Amino acid sequence: MKIIRSPRAMMAWSHEVRRQGVTIGFVPTMGALHDGHRSLIRAARLRCDALVVSIFVNHTQFGPREDLARYPRSLERDHALCRAEGADVSFEPTANAMYPEGFQTTVSLSAIARRWEGEARPHHFCGVATVVVKLFSIVRPHVALFGEKDFQQSALVRQLVADLNLGVEIIVHPTVRERDGLAMSSRNVYLSPRERIVATMLYKSLRAGAAAIRSGVTDAAAVQATMAEVVRREATLTIDYLAVCDPRTLEPLPSVVSGAVLLGAVRLGSVRLIDNLTVTARPRRTR
Amino acid sequence: MKIIRSPRAMMAWSHEVRRQGVTIGFVPTMGALHDGHRSLIRAARLRCDALVVSIFVNHTQFGPREDLARYPRSLERDHALCRAEGADVSFEPTANAMYPEGFQTTVSLSAIARRWEGEARPHHFCGVATVVVKLFSIVRPHVALFGEKDFQQSALVRQLVADLNLGVEIIVHPTVRERDGLAMSSRNVYLSPRERIVATMLYKSLRAGAAAIRSGVTDAAAVQATMAEVVRREATLTIDYLAVCDPRTLEPLPSVVSGAVLLGAVRLGSVRLIDNLTVTARPRRTR
Repeated sequence: MKIIRSPRAMMAWSHEVRRQGVTIGFVPTMGALHDGHRSLIRAARLRCDALVVSIFVNHTQFGPREDLARYPRSLERDHALCRAEGADVSFEPTANAMYPEGFQTTVSLSAIARRWEGEARPHHFCGVATVVVKLFSIVRPHVALFGEKDFQQSALVRQLVADLNLGVEIIVHPTVRERDGLAMSSRNVYLSPRERIVATMLYKSLRAGAAAIRSGVTDAAAVQATMAEVVRREATLTIDYLAVCDPRTLEPLPSVVSGAVLLGAVRLGSVRLIDNLTVTARPRRTR
Repeated sequence: MKIIRSPRAMMAWSHEVRRQGVTIGFVPTMGALHDGHRSLIRAARLRCDALVVSIFVNHTQFGPREDLARYPRSLERDHALCRAEGADVSFEPTANAMYPEGFQTTVSLSAIARRWEGEARPHHFCGVATVVVKLFSIVRPHVALFGEKDFQQSALVRQLVADLNLGVEIIVHPTVRERDGLAMSSRNVYLSPRERIVATMLYKSLRAGAAAIRSGVTDAAAVQATMAEVVRREATLTIDYLAVCDPRTLEPLPSVVSGAVLLGAVRLGSVRLIDNLTVTARPRRTR
């Protein structure tokens, strides 16, 4: 596996590989790789001739009071994982190479970036959209894979790619979970043993919402109430949002439709957890 | 010459051409082509194997009280000019194909978009930056050519390409002028015969500024005063700005340096004229 640090060298590599008619798969990450990333990298490996993973903790998507400074880093283990999964390149630019002095361009989305995570983290999606455009320009992938855990981010990237005609196929890969249901996340290392147990309540609440829908509830407010009730069993959890949404626009739905997504975010001490669950079953009619 | 309307078909054409190792030159236009465009197209023709001209009146770069509705259109003549200059493709997307329902992505720049044209036309450069990223993604040129008449726009595009790693070489081609010095512009058709004569004063004022610099003036305020004096000879002209600027950042300079650009914008009835002149001679020291 090649480690490439300069954007220019990365562009040259991709240019040469593309010229040979090779397809490039791309998994952008902030490092601290876990089995969720592993499954993205594996899926990319199966789909493409060449595989690039980027490891870049993009500071512009962190808020001023967020966890940039303590964001977990495990570069050696990340390299081992990438190598084991057959990555051809680990692209690891410096912040200065990505945002040199005088940098002043921002890519932003409106409706899809406004709610939910956009409300909790005002500049987050600007940072994400800008770095995604940059990474796509540098890596020039045919296919890029994103984890479904960051549901709104995936929807935003799809919209961005369509809007700017980026010509990259976006694949959203299912969330990988711990045995007890907790969605894997690099930030789970922040949780104390006690918090680690409490954290499972978020996914439990989404499952309770899905169960309510399966049992015939179609009113979104009722589904939300069911989810909220589960979260409230743990006094240490604060609800940021629990919502029933359109999976493409992320707008809240008044009543459940097939394909709707249940989105949730809760706070647990200084840690914020997000998760989601897509309603696959056709909701039964209420009598 | 091929006329391509759909972004998808344009992307497919470029993809195929690139696969063959052919270099693509690109001249983005809003149609109403004149000899300024012709010289851009000719320069692109000489530099590249394949040549794409786009004709797209991008409504997002017009302000609500600007001239979108009456912007001149001359598609048949435009095609004749493109054909005569050897363009391979005229790319002519519809507004709907470029901005379909739900479109919501904006590319914006900060410092370089703030002053001068950015002040007079608040959303103009957002519209420009966004459509340039889209057109570059669709056409995938190796080289793109812009006219020096829109000096700030060219500087902005250079910054945008660097910031987003777009990997397109930007060439800024000298302004083509009428015999009396007026910079060619599609908007010159708006001028009445009387206004057409008065309009030449803008370039005359820039030349007066340059002459002052050649004669030893280095104080930017003094150069500005010289330029303003020329414009004020015509009561029908209103000065929007006359400035001595850094050619890369567009920030005003306190004193003239070689390579500085004199920027000017004036109003004449309902028409706004812009022009610029680069200070090439090394300014002499004042005693």
